[in-house]
Amino acid sequence: MNDQKPSKNTDFDALFFPKNITIVGASSRRKFGKDIFVHSLSKNGYPKNKMFLVNPKYAGQQISGFNFYPSLKAIQEEELDLLYSSIRAELVPDMVREAVEKKVKFIVLFTSGFNELLTQKGYDLRDTVLKIIEGTGTRIIGPNCLGPLCSKSKVTYNPLVSSESGNIAFASQSGGHAMIIVEIQKHRSLYFSKGISFGNQIDVNCLDILDYYSKDPDTEVIGMYLESTGSANGNQFFQKMKEVTPYKPVIIWKGGQSETGERAAASHTGAVASPLSVWKNAVKQAGGIFVEESGQFWDLLYAFSKMVNTKYPKGDRAAVIVPGGGSSVEITDVMTKEGLQLNELSNETQQKLQPLYPDVNTSVRNPIDTGIAAADPSVLIKTAKILDQDEDIDIVLLYMPAHWINTFGGVLGESFTASIGRSFGRLYRKMSSLFVVISPIFVVDEVVARISTKFREILNDKNVLCFLGVKNASNTLRKILDYTKFHNK
Amino acid sequence: MNDQKPSKNTDFDALFFPKNITIVGASSRRKFGKDIFVHSLSKNGYPKNKMFLVNPKYAGQQISGFNFYPSLKAIQEEELDLLYSSIRAELVPDMVREAVEKKVKFIVLFTSGFNELLTQKGYDLRDTVLKIIEGTGTRIIGPNCLGPLCSKSKVTYNPLVSSESGNIAFASQSGGHAMIIVEIQKHRSLYFSKGISFGNQIDVNCLDILDYYSKDPDTEVIGMYLESTGSANGNQFFQKMKEVTPYKPVIIWKGGQSETGERAAASHTGAVASPLSVWKNAVKQAGGIFVEESGQFWDLLYAFSKMVNTKYPKGDRAAVIVPGGGSSVEITDVMTKEGLQLNELSNETQQKLQPLYPDVNTSVRNPIDTGIAAADPSVLIKTAKILDQDEDIDIVLLYMPAHWINTFGGVLGESFTASIGRSFGRLYRKMSSLFVVISPIFVVDEVVARISTKFREILNDKNVLCFLGVKNASNTLRKILDYTKFHNK
Repeated sequence: MNDQKPSKNTDFDALFFPKNITIVGASSRRKFGKDIFVHSLSKNGYPKNKMFLVNPKYAGQQISGFNFYPSLKAIQEEELDLLYSSIRAELVPDMVREAVEKKVKFIVLFTSGFNELLTQKGYDLRDTVLKIIEGTGTRIIGPNCLGPLCSKSKVTYNPLVSSESGNIAFASQSGGHAMIIVEIQKHRSLYFSKGISFGNQIDVNCLDILDYYSKDPDTEVIGMYLESTGSANGNQFFQKMKEVTPYKPVIIWKGGQSETGERAAASHTGAVASPLSVWKNAVKQAGGIFVEESGQFWDLLYAFSKMVNTKYPKGDRAAVIVPGGGSSVEITDVMTKEGLQLNELSNETQQKLQPLYPDVNTSVRNPIDTGIAAADPSVLIKTAKILDQDEDIDIVLLYMPAHWINTFGGVLGESFTASIGRSFGRLYRKMSSLFVVISPIFVVDEVVARISTKFREILNDKNVLCFLGVKNASNTLRKILDYTKFHNK
Repeated sequence: MNDQKPSKNTDFDALFFPKNITIVGASSRRKFGKDIFVHSLSKNGYPKNKMFLVNPKYAGQQISGFNFYPSLKAIQEEELDLLYSSIRAELVPDMVREAVEKKVKFIVLFTSGFNELLTQKGYDLRDTVLKIIEGTGTRIIGPNCLGPLCSKSKVTYNPLVSSESGNIAFASQSGGHAMIIVEIQKHRSLYFSKGISFGNQIDVNCLDILDYYSKDPDTEVIGMYLESTGSANGNQFFQKMKEVTPYKPVIIWKGGQSETGERAAASHTGAVASPLSVWKNAVKQAGGIFVEESGQFWDLLYAFSKMVNTKYPKGDRAAVIVPGGGSSVEITDVMTKEGLQLNELSNETQQKLQPLYPDVNTSVRNPIDTGIAAADPSVLIKTAKILDQDEDIDIVLLYMPAHWINTFGGVLGESFTASIGRSFGRLYRKMSSLFVVISPIFVVDEVVARISTKFREILNDKNVLCFLGVKNASNTLRKILDYTKFHNK
């Protein structure tokens, strides 16, 4: 890396594991929507006695167990690691000056009203604060962002964050996307080592964060939502990515993919346009994974986070177990479009499978149309075992819409969901093929919500991947196969 | 139409409104999975005294209120409209002979084991039964199918069917797809005038059914899942489609789109391959709508079924209301890819909108990023009204993920969901633009399941379209715009 400003503080541990947190412009928790950081941090268990709330309006008061300070200066602490700014943009320069004096290491500018306004006033404000921190030990995250997330240190901007740590690190220019990924965390089985919402990236940028994540022992998968490279040099960023991808997959979701989308991105984070094709090629050449929308981004983070711990698919030859001829045709259509191979099974394998199924209304050619036999979990388990023995098969998929689990469960008893999930989990430990379940939610009612959640929890616990749709599964597998091929895994 | 066999019975009223129903091979309802027709029909309210159950095993017994007959001959009724065959394939020819003698009008061959086996035995069996009905008044549906569905006449193959009739008629070669479309019926707000699962189409085929649906006064939208045109002449089928599409949209979902998919289709319904491009072009030239997977199929049936009663979009210029900058960028990316126009709003419209929103962290350029202001339904309503007044806007979209409704509702009270739904319903009656809500379900828990279902029910009740994803919405709107352009609507 050829960083042109070597004096900058790059001790990002102080950002993700801050010894203390100061919130300038903290509101009383009585006002809705104003206390996002105080509320999230305290709900997540960050120690109250390490949080300093600054607001002259409430100075000297104690509200909800917090002491309010009239100013930054009034805080006695020698060193301030992390500071959130919730004040108006015009007040930011003075606050940054004080923060530099107080030796604040990282300022998270939640405040908007900078270059994303696309006005001279906004650009000037950006330049002013950058000038103030130049050559100092203080760095700025944002503006127009939510800052860091780290389960281990209890740092978060969202009260709903899981206390469970994982191996995924994300970074997002969009605060909204950084919020949603936490909101869906449990539902999509996404567990984070670190995360950051860094908005306009006027100072700390994707290159800094990628570098830090690449060295972070808790991080095995990296995902970034970017509308631009912000203050980072694009070439340096992609060079860094190239160094990282052989040992940690890097998934890039690019926002602002069309002329109109670029306009939206500009007024969102002040992003300067760069053609989509340039991004796509750069990510590809760096061995990363390029995605175009949220669903793909979440699916790939999820799938990689499981696979780096267990196994990658050996190749693209898949066998699909599916109850029903119509669905078997649809699955074949969708998967084949993504370049997965659904070859007809060998005579040997077909002969092993045939005794498990009635002669009519089923097929053992591939897809394996189980017909009603799928209501018996032992038949499904035996089928998966036989397919795993076939050396011409790399991936075994089971298709089981969520409301069917309920139907089968209704007949065979409440324990069906748990029993089938656990059986597959046990089997998977012994399988050499990749085993994947596809369980779309076509009907959303309270029973399906409960059963589907339980089913996927059990599978995920055993590292069996479970996708919410055929397209999701095939698109994700395709991109993972491209990654493993590129890096000879 | 130039039908070469004019002697065939085409009185399909006897199929959809049968005076009586005979089930040959009916099992006692004690055995799981065997009594699909008896169970579905009686649960749906088809009169028990018009159902004749034939099974020598139970002859003379009364089980669950049904009298079992030893044979077809033993039934006293002069004319038998509809007969289901649940017996083994080898027994079918003799049964068909008896049925012809008893002047049965329609035989639904639930029985599999015909040409879809791709064996000589299977082809012979098909030819045998076709020979038996030749020149008679008896016609065959299937084999390998579930037969008709009609809410008005209480005829169904699925116990879960809604008693509410609608304006959609479907036909499906796949029994599985015909099942799923009923299973998701309420969740996706799909209501049917008629439906049919017709399997291998060895006799009654897509041409017959399309012709019938085209004349059916209860049917305004037609959807077909086809793997082949079965016994119909392809040219005649597409000629018929061309006659129908100007006044009733015809949506064709083709199964077996790849070489591998065609193999799956062949062993599913014995479909003979015909290249995908031929199908696509033929449907396009006939003014129909071609889709490639289930989600698109359901979305289009749903959207057309609402629109034929209210309004089609005037054009492709859309304005999007969305809380959050990240989502606004993603929506723009996805919609622009489908060729929808998200132009920057006029100065006049922007000036009208601006007072509704704070200056920072929002945008009124299009997409309209509402920020947290979306928590106030009156702001959303005012925004939609202003956009509707803009003559350069044809479609107004609101993006509101299901779990956000819950979040906003949690703050503003339980009545939020209902209140926002009803407000939009009332507004829509006065709007000249098409108003569409996009409400993806990112988190599936019991609360979201309840709230999302209620929200969409209210909107659907007022004919406001509500889609489950941005891609679904944009893809569906694109295809509807293509349809309206083709037919100058």
